[in-house]
Amino acid sequence: MLVGLSDLQRHTHYAGYNQDNMVPKRNVTLPSFLFPKPRDFSLPNSSWGLEMMRMYEHYNRQCEVETEGGQKQEGPWQKLPSYNRLLKYATGGVYLSEMIQSKARLFTRNIRNPGAAFEYVLFVNSEEQKCVCVLQAGHLLEGPPGHVHGGAIATMIDTVTGTHATILSGPVMTANLNINYRRPIPLGSTVLLESSLEKKEGRKTFITCRVTSTDGSKLHTETSALFLSISASHLLSGL
Amino acid sequence: MLVGLSDLQRHTHYAGYNQDNMVPKRNVTLPSFLFPKPRDFSLPNSSWGLEMMRMYEHYNRQCEVETEGGQKQEGPWQKLPSYNRLLKYATGGVYLSEMIQSKARLFTRNIRNPGAAFEYVLFVNSEEQKCVCVLQAGHLLEGPPGHVHGGAIATMIDTVTGTHATILSGPVMTANLNINYRRPIPLGSTVLLESSLEKKEGRKTFITCRVTSTDGSKLHTETSALFLSISASHLLSGL
Repeated sequence: MLVGLSDLQRHTHYAGYNQDNMVPKRNVTLPSFLFPKPRDFSLPNSSWGLEMMRMYEHYNRQCEVETEGGQKQEGPWQKLPSYNRLLKYATGGVYLSEMIQSKARLFTRNIRNPGAAFEYVLFVNSEEQKCVCVLQAGHLLEGPPGHVHGGAIATMIDTVTGTHATILSGPVMTANLNINYRRPIPLGSTVLLESSLEKKEGRKTFITCRVTSTDGSKLHTETSALFLSISASHLLSGL
Repeated sequence: MLVGLSDLQRHTHYAGYNQDNMVPKRNVTLPSFLFPKPRDFSLPNSSWGLEMMRMYEHYNRQCEVETEGGQKQEGPWQKLPSYNRLLKYATGGVYLSEMIQSKARLFTRNIRNPGAAFEYVLFVNSEEQKCVCVLQAGHLLEGPPGHVHGGAIATMIDTVTGTHATILSGPVMTANLNINYRRPIPLGSTVLLESSLEKKEGRKTFITCRVTSTDGSKLHTETSALFLSISASHLLSGL
């Protein structure tokens, strides 16, 4: 069923394991049966606080710049859309019933109440081979009292580095996440995740990721991540 | 406010960063204002499939054994309760409003619909210094189509190893999670997480964790985790 959807596959993170935030190539129309008017969950909503809005606007402003002649053109950053599911009808695992498939939702977008869980938006800078994510961590992500769960942080790190690896290398799977937790993140706060390409070696893409306060003064976590490129046939076999 | 609650603190994982699944010492009555009839979310419900029930009963049977004289006594395993929040009124991070605090819920228990997200139960074996978790991964944990999100897997690994480290060493924080993803987990399936003590060195507790199919034949992930013991004053300062 996926044969021929190479552009779609090229930007799909089947990785550790997240297919969120694809980057459709400009001017490529995606098959409509896969995207029946998908909602982009990474647009501002009423739950976004001042800090979240400020960081969003900071990067969003750099998605389009004016030339000297007054014309608008692409800027250094590009905003990535974020859906709550990519492929509603993909073949799943061997244990997967149709009922489960039809109800399945992306882990990071499984709570509809705005602001309650993950509010986030990703931007990519192709020239610098960087990806950033602005995250506002809602009250349903609690670990220790008043602070974000380490698993919720790992989830966003996987999302950002996996998306970045997919943009850089096409379809990938997460092979390793090595996360150093330096400082807990207060619940309700907005933080920045910055992902950078370290190197590519054959099938391997090495990415590093830092989670900091939005002004960069506080380091929350440092991560090195390894992704393995996978073939289209691997994808088609339902992993 | 927490002064004197040493038994509570001793079993609290302020770690990477999860205070779930405490082990109240037998015969210790916890302060009632902290636990206004808490619900144990790790008891069987109608969403549990056959495999989940089978594994639960396998370990639950070993929580109580009969002596030769026909008397019942503690078995090698002990079931841990699991709440959706430990401290409703703890001081939070500096950015935390009262509104957020009162609504906060543990990340792994933030969806009430049975079977939709994480269904899990933990057992500990003090003599063998092991902890196991039976996990049924619901349809809201999706990453790649039909498979569990890498961040959801990391979340359960953090939960199990952090709980285990807390039982072994008292209050801890996750310092490092190094996760190798070997094989994706089909959405809807039941898997086993097994946590083992590797070693303790001063403030450091090293734990390893394997995620496998329930019969042990398929290895999904391998993890080494490092936890740092923290002092009570560290806890009291709101981390």
